[in-house]
Amino acid sequence: MQTYLECVPCFVRQALDSVRLVTDDEEVHERLLREILRAASEMDLWQSPPAMGQRIHRLIRRLTGQSDPYRELKDHSTRVALELYPKLRARVHASSRPLETALRLAIAGNVIDMGVKAHFDEPALHEAIEDASSAPLDGDMRAFAETLSGARRILYLADNAGEIVFDRLLLEQMPVEKVTVAVRGFPVINDVTIADTQAAGIPGLVEVIDNGSDAPGTILDDCSSEFRHRFDAADMIVAKGQGNYETLNEVEKDIFFVLKAKCPVIARDLGCRVGSLILRRSRHARVAAGDTNEIEDAGSAGL
Amino acid sequence: MQTYLECVPCFVRQALDSVRLVTDDEEVHERLLREILRAASEMDLWQSPPAMGQRIHRLIRRLTGQSDPYRELKDHSTRVALELYPKLRARVHASSRPLETALRLAIAGNVIDMGVKAHFDEPALHEAIEDASSAPLDGDMRAFAETLSGARRILYLADNAGEIVFDRLLLEQMPVEKVTVAVRGFPVINDVTIADTQAAGIPGLVEVIDNGSDAPGTILDDCSSEFRHRFDAADMIVAKGQGNYETLNEVEKDIFFVLKAKCPVIARDLGCRVGSLILRRSRHARVAAGDTNEIEDAGSAGL
Repeated sequence: MQTYLECVPCFVRQALDSVRLVTDDEEVHERLLREILRAASEMDLWQSPPAMGQRIHRLIRRLTGQSDPYRELKDHSTRVALELYPKLRARVHASSRPLETALRLAIAGNVIDMGVKAHFDEPALHEAIEDASSAPLDGDMRAFAETLSGARRILYLADNAGEIVFDRLLLEQMPVEKVTVAVRGFPVINDVTIADTQAAGIPGLVEVIDNGSDAPGTILDDCSSEFRHRFDAADMIVAKGQGNYETLNEVEKDIFFVLKAKCPVIARDLGCRVGSLILRRSRHARVAAGDTNEIEDAGSAGL
Repeated sequence: MQTYLECVPCFVRQALDSVRLVTDDEEVHERLLREILRAASEMDLWQSPPAMGQRIHRLIRRLTGQSDPYRELKDHSTRVALELYPKLRARVHASSRPLETALRLAIAGNVIDMGVKAHFDEPALHEAIEDASSAPLDGDMRAFAETLSGARRILYLADNAGEIVFDRLLLEQMPVEKVTVAVRGFPVINDVTIADTQAAGIPGLVEVIDNGSDAPGTILDDCSSEFRHRFDAADMIVAKGQGNYETLNEVEKDIFFVLKAKCPVIARDLGCRVGSLILRRSRHARVAAGDTNEIEDAGSAGL
């Protein structure tokens, strides 16, 4: 997805929120702000929003000398999610449609996003968990289940720390021997890294790899060749969260995007309301599967 | 008031909202955005926010070739305000404290601000009118009334088109022969100009002058010498709205700031909640009047 003009004021606000979280030094705040404004004035809008996010958070780490500024917040959100996990797992087990229930809860976990709000909003998480059982699911659950049962190599692109505990509920409903979870190569915002998967008990369940990149999304050109190889070899990809949607929505692979639409730009791009629970198959796969609406749409400019 | 870092993302958003109102040409939107980002990256934060507003709206006028892009919206808000006027005037006349009632309604009119939202939000205006009768008034009404009755030359710095109809209710409660209303010298956003005062029936009531500037506030160095002379000669100044507060709050004059606090930065600066009805005398005048709290505060850094 390209960067829309209205993403730009949001980047600037996010940069300011983030740097304030990391340091009280107002000179650093101002220096970051000026550098971000200068970078944004020259940015290539055909790049996806996470490309700018990557640049912002590299700058914050450089200016503050902190390699993992969200570490404490990530650990806290993991602890909170692990406390909720047994009850949520029981809810999945009690459900007549456990795969859908687990998917809905994985979407609820997607609110643990410190790019959108520079803190861990625990009440919003509880609200999202309740909302997940009743809100409409915007997507084709049958296609997801069928693709899942036919796939041989499934790559699950995780999104955030804490959220990965919610992903675990969904992973447990999948053929775990065929699943690999991929995380970010380096800390960026509260995005999930290898360390966070360990705290969430993921490596005991499925294989875990990292993508070699510090972008808050999956910019394929920025990922390691090992990751690229795994990506190419997968016959089903589950991509979690806005950052993965923004960086992969035009890629020619069979990708299921699983997310909560948290901003108006994404919601417009997806044709849904802000807050919607989204399970969206990539256009490429829908065209390949003969979805006639998609064949008609395929030539249009999108937004 | 200086520009705070959090004003910057708001400027960028406002610039985008404004240019979209004026033209559908996306190349113009992008060009404006890039120019604003570049300007903001180098801006002097000791300048007040209206200095940046002036720059943004000059650029919009230059890029679109429209000298008064908000003309239609201003005329519409004036018509709506004039429709409300007889009922509101009756409310003032029926009040046991007509000066305060008129002041409260003048504050309600301050929501007609297309810098904050790039449209005329009529429901918000009706809400503000209702709110004006019951919400607490944050200010010293007695000092205002006493200063008003003792003043010989009163300068009323108006803010926006449409809002000036609400100001008329307050002007009618003042010694009109001593009052001069000053408006912006040139169109900027929906700020009031001579033409808007005519539509609102102000010149038949009090003298009207303009300040010679196209800033959305009163940047004294940018105003005409005629206006500066009138400003210096006045012994009471009523300054309406955020832009006038932001540009004059540190000036050594007896100024009563009359506004609705519409953004978190202003609210923090004023020490109030967003949405508060504000009647605030300039610190200079409070110190001169022997307000001991102010004498203690006078050396502090403010925010």
